[in-house]
Amino acid sequence: MAEELRMETAEILIDGKWQEATSETTFHAFNPATGEALAKTFPVSEWADCDLALDAASRAATALQTMPPDKLAAFLDAYAANLVAASAAIVEAANEETGLPVAPRLKDHELPRTVNQLREAAKAVREESWKNPILDLERNIRSCFGPIGPVVVFGPNNFPLAFNGVSGGDFAAAIAAGNPVIAKAHPLHPNTTRLLAIEANKAAVETGMPDGTVQMIYNISNEDGLRLVSDPRIGAVAFTGSRAAGLALKKSADEAGKPIYLEMSSINPVIFLPGAIAQDEDRLTRELADSCLAAAGQQCTSPNLFFLWKDSNSESLITKLAGIFDQRAPQPLLSLAGKSHLESGVSSLLNAGAQLVTGGHEVDAPGYRYAHTVLRVSASQFLARHRDLEREVFGNTTMAVTVENTEELLAILELLEGNLTGSIYSSKSGIDDSLYAQIEPLLRKKVGRLLNDKMPTGVAVSPAMQHGGPFPATSHPGFTAVGIPTAIARFAMLQCYDGVREDRLPAVLRNTIQNPHTWRSINGAWTRG
Amino acid sequence: MAEELRMETAEILIDGKWQEATSETTFHAFNPATGEALAKTFPVSEWADCDLALDAASRAATALQTMPPDKLAAFLDAYAANLVAASAAIVEAANEETGLPVAPRLKDHELPRTVNQLREAAKAVREESWKNPILDLERNIRSCFGPIGPVVVFGPNNFPLAFNGVSGGDFAAAIAAGNPVIAKAHPLHPNTTRLLAIEANKAAVETGMPDGTVQMIYNISNEDGLRLVSDPRIGAVAFTGSRAAGLALKKSADEAGKPIYLEMSSINPVIFLPGAIAQDEDRLTRELADSCLAAAGQQCTSPNLFFLWKDSNSESLITKLAGIFDQRAPQPLLSLAGKSHLESGVSSLLNAGAQLVTGGHEVDAPGYRYAHTVLRVSASQFLARHRDLEREVFGNTTMAVTVENTEELLAILELLEGNLTGSIYSSKSGIDDSLYAQIEPLLRKKVGRLLNDKMPTGVAVSPAMQHGGPFPATSHPGFTAVGIPTAIARFAMLQCYDGVREDRLPAVLRNTIQNPHTWRSINGAWTRG
Repeated sequence: MAEELRMETAEILIDGKWQEATSETTFHAFNPATGEALAKTFPVSEWADCDLALDAASRAATALQTMPPDKLAAFLDAYAANLVAASAAIVEAANEETGLPVAPRLKDHELPRTVNQLREAAKAVREESWKNPILDLERNIRSCFGPIGPVVVFGPNNFPLAFNGVSGGDFAAAIAAGNPVIAKAHPLHPNTTRLLAIEANKAAVETGMPDGTVQMIYNISNEDGLRLVSDPRIGAVAFTGSRAAGLALKKSADEAGKPIYLEMSSINPVIFLPGAIAQDEDRLTRELADSCLAAAGQQCTSPNLFFLWKDSNSESLITKLAGIFDQRAPQPLLSLAGKSHLESGVSSLLNAGAQLVTGGHEVDAPGYRYAHTVLRVSASQFLARHRDLEREVFGNTTMAVTVENTEELLAILELLEGNLTGSIYSSKSGIDDSLYAQIEPLLRKKVGRLLNDKMPTGVAVSPAMQHGGPFPATSHPGFTAVGIPTAIARFAMLQCYDGVREDRLPAVLRNTIQNPHTWRSINGAWTRG
Repeated sequence: MAEELRMETAEILIDGKWQEATSETTFHAFNPATGEALAKTFPVSEWADCDLALDAASRAATALQTMPPDKLAAFLDAYAANLVAASAAIVEAANEETGLPVAPRLKDHELPRTVNQLREAAKAVREESWKNPILDLERNIRSCFGPIGPVVVFGPNNFPLAFNGVSGGDFAAAIAAGNPVIAKAHPLHPNTTRLLAIEANKAAVETGMPDGTVQMIYNISNEDGLRLVSDPRIGAVAFTGSRAAGLALKKSADEAGKPIYLEMSSINPVIFLPGAIAQDEDRLTRELADSCLAAAGQQCTSPNLFFLWKDSNSESLITKLAGIFDQRAPQPLLSLAGKSHLESGVSSLLNAGAQLVTGGHEVDAPGYRYAHTVLRVSASQFLARHRDLEREVFGNTTMAVTVENTEELLAILELLEGNLTGSIYSSKSGIDDSLYAQIEPLLRKKVGRLLNDKMPTGVAVSPAMQHGGPFPATSHPGFTAVGIPTAIARFAMLQCYDGVREDRLPAVLRNTIQNPHTWRSINGAWTRG
């Protein structure tokens, strides 16, 4: 009987092989739409599994050092094609484990985005410009970016495909830089991750990648997580998730001198200047509601806070927003724990002086649901309790801050922690322009991406994207987690060749380059071809 | 009397003004050539001084956000010109406080290098390509690097000008990115730093920089140092110095989420392949001696370790090296503490099994001098005690490691920690080529700069330079401390503009750019003009 149960437990992917985990404990995922446990059993790996993965990753890293770009790109493309072929089953599993709608969300947005990211990464690998080759021919000093070493990727709960440790943007960027990846599945969607890893591994075999290029484990203890991110065999870590977990991993990685890229908490302030509301109140209200409630507000760029000048238009906007929130049926949250955090987050805001406009209670429906919630607070209240009121509440909740005058807003912006995004809506007429000029410089310092007349949700995969920002939004404001090729730089080391004989240089640094697509800076001028 | 003594204590530079420090304690510098204390008294600042500097730096950071590049560049150029004008006094002070020779070292190498770095930084500021502007016109998403916030720079003991917190490469790069600098002088050369800061401040006044753009304090307690690097008002930290101090600062900055760039310890392995020695033993021996003994070995890229195959040529090289070491008169070390560290470092290596070839004792001469020292150890001994034998010994000491076969060397390279540099000398005849091919991939992963047939000392200010490397050489292998414009990126945040109206964009991101020199990536292609 024990044997039989054991046989049912999912296998982990280590060193190119699906194998049983060393495990004393197992776990299940749940269907957020019903609250019921799903059938499949998954292992919580012990350190022995991490150790095997680390050794295999070290060997793979060495083998990948000499992998021709075309071959590495072929792997990414093959993986993308496999995902397209297997998309129905993957989307179904993701829907079952996350409660996110099959269409349009998973099938029409997130899966295509995931496939696109892998293909963009393949394109970047073939082009090689991400290596930023710099040739100082006069001194015969040359440098380019090269792989940093095995990368451990912790995916978040909220994007089971596009940010998954074994398929998402961090995965694509780490592989593109020539590194093996050890993916830690998010325990809320292990089966989705298993199906993704199957396609990744098939692609790796098809395209002749070294064993250990892609490895995946479902779950580990917190202690083993801390040990994993500080292991001498790794090169870097990427983590998307909660601030508490992120900071714990950061401490461990930092002590070992391992670069760790965290995407943690962000409240994404949206500022409505008076002219904008006067001009277009209804559209703005709708855009705000759509942005706040997309994926039940469980997005890293969801606006947790919006600012408006205290006047009758603003009162009307808040009332209409509450109306829209009341009309729409709450979608399931990702987990019971997430629902509890949302409840306690709202309670904390109320305890800190926020007023409830609508929502703030459970919903009598199956699964993990919470009423769409609008809170409000005055700027002076916010200033008095800013540390308590500036907390990220992850879910379908937002809070209006009404300001009496510009000075109040400036004072709040000065106090704000770092964020991924900050948006300013202003009138096209020009009447908001002087306010904009006062506000923008302060907001600019606090956010990675500054938006005009646009909500922050929906993060384009663009080379100009900055999905990052000052701490605690991330751990370093110079890097982005989204956007190819920019995101690749996180997983690269700067490799200089000083006086190295030409035939010993990597192809990308030789005087004459075979690849006609690579941009190189030669004696200060960018050229290609 | 107390009043009179107080008057003699040097003033610190805060918020554009030379002023008395809040200080209970003072210190003196020493002349390393004689061991005698120098006359001038300097204050150990208390937190109150740091606090004033931080407030002033915050104001300066805001003012610098809108500073036109030409004006900022004018400051750097004016400072460079002031240094040239004041060079005689600066070089004299530096010689007195460090024992480094006036000529050629300080006057002909280090001061011109310092001036050149400032001018290169000015050029980069004017050109604006360091901002790496990326325009995705289709999606109207644009990004570029912008200032990260006030930068605290801790300069090292060994380059009183070119790496000084108030004049060196970190200073130039931080200012170039548009950040104010709070410089902490190295307490071994406070008067040099004072003279440099005088010229910096004069240039700042001449060119209309905001007060607080350049600030300087001489010394602070360790506790205040930890507090300074974690203060919410700063943007980043640069530190060059010992591993112990660097790691303490790193811990504090990391916990506060502040990027910190450390240059710490590096042993800079030099590998002589057998054919190279057979071909050119005398020249190699001389080059190694020159590199090891430059500045009494007190350079971050000084070769602490060299590898050679155990044969008669190698024995001859070691013997000849010892001969050169014996012939040359030891130069003064930078401090008494440095001499003690060197002594205890050599003792540790001896205790760990190294044999003394020559040196290893004090020298009967004035000041802080230690005999030029050569140690040796076999590869098997090294492998058995690698953690004890792989320690940086800062000063005029090096150690030969004799290897029996390639496997031993590969095993050692696999164990080595990260380094700034690694050099391979090989025969031009091709007989070393297969050995090179085996060794290079392992060495490549462990070093920032890989050299052929060249010693690692002498770090060119080139855009292709990587003066950095894997931990513990530095804290992040993706960045360099030397080389303009590459080094500027450390002090920049990635600022994205999403849907922002054209007239609100920074000039460098608008559709049409005024600056004809700026390289920009527009829809994936680099263009300028």
